[in-house]
Amino acid sequence: MRNLKLTIAYDGSRYKGWQKQKDNDLTIQGKIETVLSKMTGESILLVGCGRTDSGVHAENYIANFHTKCALSPNEIVDYLYEYLPEDIVVKSIDEIAERFHARYNVKSKTYVYRINTDKFRDVFNRKYTYHLADKLNLREMKSASEVLIGTHDFQSFTNLKSRDKSTIRTINYINIGEQDGLLEIEVNGNGFLWNMVRIIVGTLLEVGKGNLKPSDVEKILNEKKRWEAGPLAQAKGLFLKDVQY
Amino acid sequence: MRNLKLTIAYDGSRYKGWQKQKDNDLTIQGKIETVLSKMTGESILLVGCGRTDSGVHAENYIANFHTKCALSPNEIVDYLYEYLPEDIVVKSIDEIAERFHARYNVKSKTYVYRINTDKFRDVFNRKYTYHLADKLNLREMKSASEVLIGTHDFQSFTNLKSRDKSTIRTINYINIGEQDGLLEIEVNGNGFLWNMVRIIVGTLLEVGKGNLKPSDVEKILNEKKRWEAGPLAQAKGLFLKDVQY
Repeated sequence: MRNLKLTIAYDGSRYKGWQKQKDNDLTIQGKIETVLSKMTGESILLVGCGRTDSGVHAENYIANFHTKCALSPNEIVDYLYEYLPEDIVVKSIDEIAERFHARYNVKSKTYVYRINTDKFRDVFNRKYTYHLADKLNLREMKSASEVLIGTHDFQSFTNLKSRDKSTIRTINYINIGEQDGLLEIEVNGNGFLWNMVRIIVGTLLEVGKGNLKPSDVEKILNEKKRWEAGPLAQAKGLFLKDVQY
Repeated sequence: MRNLKLTIAYDGSRYKGWQKQKDNDLTIQGKIETVLSKMTGESILLVGCGRTDSGVHAENYIANFHTKCALSPNEIVDYLYEYLPEDIVVKSIDEIAERFHARYNVKSKTYVYRINTDKFRDVFNRKYTYHLADKLNLREMKSASEVLIGTHDFQSFTNLKSRDKSTIRTINYINIGEQDGLLEIEVNGNGFLWNMVRIIVGTLLEVGKGNLKPSDVEKILNEKKRWEAGPLAQAKGLFLKDVQY
């Protein structure tokens, strides 16, 4: 069996996230599996690098699947380009070792959250940015973000219901930068709990607004209670940027 | 009566252009007039700087209206921001001389046409760029664009049906530049015939593909026949960028 690795860009606006749910739900996995199954005549199972929430976008989502299909990677790319909806593009396909698994082999992932800080919403970017005209204190946000770097129990930063799974994760870096009315918060870590990036962003924005101090973020982390942290930031500003293996 | 000048950004994707048509048609003029009329209790007539085609966007469209309403420009901006749909933003309002007329007083307009020249469509910019993966000869396109600079009869570059209106216009400059897979064609002129910018772009793209030579563009101009020119470029790549008074 060949093992093929896909690099995928998608506009998540109208989808219920990556992961296939009920047969008739609109998901990115479902859309691509349908086209691949039709192309190969096999029942294709795509392994994704992780779930993305409803409305979250991806610039370089990674997935893999096994197939006996003899088409070249470029031929498959072209087929998918023709038959996938216009908000999903498989940018490249590579032959990869049989043992490669898009989820198990993830070393780290990079997410970026985009905020339009202009006075008004950007009519052309309104589906890909969260609009927040408040004056934000970036220095305080950066200081608060440093508290989160490293290996911690991120229980305060997830809506995860199950209590028996580990909520310990490692954040490698958080970059915060603003240019021309666009504030970007880039977060890289070895793995992320459900809603974790969006709650981190929601918490950092509270710090930026002056509602929380960087020292409060340390308390929030130690409390291990979701309600101590900031609100869940809107899905539409979040992009899975890259996955490292 | 006060005379107020509006600077408007809009995503034209779902509209039948600027100009109000039948009562139930979706137009930008119609949307803004409805909100302004409700706000003032007057029957507001917006004078726009010109028509834009269905699907064409605007970064800084200019319009004006007369009113007895006593609200400050900022209060009106805020009211419109709250009640207009999310794809239309009135960015600023200025008090202006009674005699100012947004259409009659136009000195020139700048349009920009955006083309994604990457291999694949950009899932995030697909509604605001025309996708063309062909290798284009920019030097030839620039050379052809120079033929169009100045005052000419642009009858070959319009779908205007009426023959008794003047088709003479002046193009002040055309800038063509490409960066990071985005090709921009910026056209500034004293006025534009119906579909004129899109036919100029369609013609320049034929030159870029090698289907026409710069010298052919001179012939097309002299023939004064629409069918000699290139095809109509898609509306979604076109933006009214600025209006000069």
